[in-house]
Amino acid sequence: MHILVTNDDGVTAPGLLALAQEMRNLGQVTVLAPDRNWSASGHVKTLDRPLRVRDVTLADGSLALATDGAPSDSVALALLGLLPSKVDLVVSGINPHSNLGHDVTYSGTVTAAMEAAISGLPGIAVSLYSGEIDHEPFDYGPAARIALKVAANVMAHGLPKDTLLNVNVPYLPGGEIKGVKITRQGLRVYRDLLDRRMDPRGRPYYWIGGEAPTGVVEDGTDFGALAEGYVSITPLHLDLTAYETMEALRGWEWR
Amino acid sequence: MHILVTNDDGVTAPGLLALAQEMRNLGQVTVLAPDRNWSASGHVKTLDRPLRVRDVTLADGSLALATDGAPSDSVALALLGLLPSKVDLVVSGINPHSNLGHDVTYSGTVTAAMEAAISGLPGIAVSLYSGEIDHEPFDYGPAARIALKVAANVMAHGLPKDTLLNVNVPYLPGGEIKGVKITRQGLRVYRDLLDRRMDPRGRPYYWIGGEAPTGVVEDGTDFGALAEGYVSITPLHLDLTAYETMEALRGWEWR
Repeated sequence: MHILVTNDDGVTAPGLLALAQEMRNLGQVTVLAPDRNWSASGHVKTLDRPLRVRDVTLADGSLALATDGAPSDSVALALLGLLPSKVDLVVSGINPHSNLGHDVTYSGTVTAAMEAAISGLPGIAVSLYSGEIDHEPFDYGPAARIALKVAANVMAHGLPKDTLLNVNVPYLPGGEIKGVKITRQGLRVYRDLLDRRMDPRGRPYYWIGGEAPTGVVEDGTDFGALAEGYVSITPLHLDLTAYETMEALRGWEWR
Repeated sequence: MHILVTNDDGVTAPGLLALAQEMRNLGQVTVLAPDRNWSASGHVKTLDRPLRVRDVTLADGSLALATDGAPSDSVALALLGLLPSKVDLVVSGINPHSNLGHDVTYSGTVTAAMEAAISGLPGIAVSLYSGEIDHEPFDYGPAARIALKVAANVMAHGLPKDTLLNVNVPYLPGGEIKGVKITRQGLRVYRDLLDRRMDPRGRPYYWIGGEAPTGVVEDGTDFGALAEGYVSITPLHLDLTAYETMEALRGWEWR
């Protein structure tokens, strides 16, 4: 069993180390991750410049690889032949903040797992539902142990084609996590505001600001499960077709 | 009617100009697009740096806005209040190359339309299925006229919540296009290869190379419609939940 561990916060992030250490219980682990933070950077395939890869040493003394590409590039590099041995599973994270609802197409953590699914491998994205707490240090232990459980299940059962898992773990001591719920993607409520400022030369620039997003807490959704203290596991599919809309569109006048 | 036109090839791209000109038949048009190419850059929300916006003049003498953000940032800027009047519709393109199958999460053209859908507005992504022909100049006229037809239909009928349209137009003279098919997302076949090279200092770097992707030509899909000379319109949904996988996952051992 050969597991690729990556993330979108960069190879030195403590969430990645906790994940890699736990995954070693399941097999050989290779860490290949971006050399900087790529949060909210989306699903990238870097084609306009070459990518570099260098050796780095993680905080526990283990070896890892860092690239100047995106999280999804890290997965592409690994699966296209950079690594000498075949990869069986890709696990991405642990992101210190949740990836829920509409976050999934923005999220570097999730799009790394998407890249695995596109290449025909199982992919798992793992994030911490850390709520109000917004900075390190986090205790990634409970989330890492849940990631191991999810990964073991995925290796035992497999995932259907074009499917990945988006796992969000409530930030609670291990014993207080109530269990696992299989959920659907809920509704994110973004509260972005445009923050216009003047630079020292009197010219405007714009921050995408505003408050942290919330979500609609609803039974059966990722938000619903986390609000009750459960781990949320949402299976995601790469086929985005809105099947229920097709018939209506066929009725429109197209000549 | 106020239409925002953007793209992922940059504000000077001829496909954007053709689209903007045609959209003026439907209402007021604002062009706000990236100042450079963002192809395959994914769904980005730029939070780690501020964005700049500057006035530019397009090749037909009309005014436009250029930003150093991504295509989806362009949409966010416009909808968060940069523009003085409310936007009713976002149209992205015309991309000189197709966005089909699994391309949709990578594509700046499509993720700009996703950003509109996330903000509650109808979004349309328009791309040219240009096949073997791989560079400008393209005649965007037929595709722009089809984009106008699609946009008029969307304004007349609306789109369901969280839904966008991914339109791909075969690169044929207008009269040879057979019509419109409402399709599902097909299967992309990527043929990426890792191309390892040495820099002048003897250190390796890596291109994601290989041949252009193909697709599985199958009835009912985007690839199938285009292969027959039809316009492909695929409605896409922001809910990526793999509903059909949920029950199986619930049967796994989670304690």
